[in-house]
Amino acid sequence: MKTQYYTAASLDGFIATEDDSLAWLFQLGDMPESTYPDFISRVGAIAMGSTTYRWILNNAEQVAAQTGSSWPYTCPTWVFTSRPHPVVPGADIRFASGDVRAVFPEMRKAAGEQNLWIVGGGDLAGQFADAGLLNELIVQVGSVTLGRGRPLLPRRLLPPVLHLTSVSRLGPEMVELRYDIRVDAP
Amino acid sequence: MKTQYYTAASLDGFIATEDDSLAWLFQLGDMPESTYPDFISRVGAIAMGSTTYRWILNNAEQVAAQTGSSWPYTCPTWVFTSRPHPVVPGADIRFASGDVRAVFPEMRKAAGEQNLWIVGGGDLAGQFADAGLLNELIVQVGSVTLGRGRPLLPRRLLPPVLHLTSVSRLGPEMVELRYDIRVDAP
Repeated sequence: MKTQYYTAASLDGFIATEDDSLAWLFQLGDMPESTYPDFISRVGAIAMGSTTYRWILNNAEQVAAQTGSSWPYTCPTWVFTSRPHPVVPGADIRFASGDVRAVFPEMRKAAGEQNLWIVGGGDLAGQFADAGLLNELIVQVGSVTLGRGRPLLPRRLLPPVLHLTSVSRLGPEMVELRYDIRVDAP
Repeated sequence: MKTQYYTAASLDGFIATEDDSLAWLFQLGDMPESTYPDFISRVGAIAMGSTTYRWILNNAEQVAAQTGSSWPYTCPTWVFTSRPHPVVPGADIRFASGDVRAVFPEMRKAAGEQNLWIVGGGDLAGQFADAGLLNELIVQVGSVTLGRGRPLLPRRLLPPVLHLTSVSRLGPEMVELRYDIRVDAP
């Protein structure tokens, strides 16, 4: 029953280029030992920002090729946005805006005994961290620098907030780092 | 006989805060399995930018406490700068400016069979990478996000330029990632 931010990032801390491209990530090649199947099997609800949601809508073919479906999630998904968006037919998508703390109890209840996944972007994950609601950070660091782009987590989390719990290589050009977030840290 | 950029960084790709503080790094605590002694034993020449050099001058007490000397390097050091700086008495310090390619042969010759260390900052390392002169990137990633600050490597090095050669945990809150840089990559 954790709230987790699980994402890929470049070595220099970007999750996408400034024009929201993930081409660099797909160029890294197959990830034979991906932790995603095990991770997603434990997720009971999802939160994402509007840029992430629009990316999925605008890249439906690529998403379908990677996952088998243009909307790959079966659990309820909250999209944090200040403006209306199209809805994917058949998907359980709910729109929310404002303080993440106001929506959190409903998301937590929907997730039940499962985890809550903050898909991104970085600022949405930061809002959960600001509210003391983020428990775990799981980052697949790819062998690439982007130099500029969308930041992984635009927040200052100083020692001892993050605690490194796991380091595992996921194939030739990816390493996964997992951190517990100590919400009570001074 | 490699040219290496060896540095600590935050998980989100900064080597210092925007005011050039490394306090976050020292807050991470002891690094019991540091690779530094083995690394520095193979270094024959050093290059650094003027901000890094000024940091060492301005933090002489802290440097001495960490390393035993206010100028911890015995090999020749080139400081890339466009303005004059004080010189540490007894240290082999040479000032350079302009294109790194013009100074590289002299540095390479001074290093002999040893490696050349680009201490930082990120832009100086980027200048060596731009010129195809950087062979290896060695980053100790600490359990911290800074949100903003001095970038690790403000360049776009897309696949297959970086190749992950080593992943090793260096203690409770640090992981070291090593990358070969394929200078002939398309």
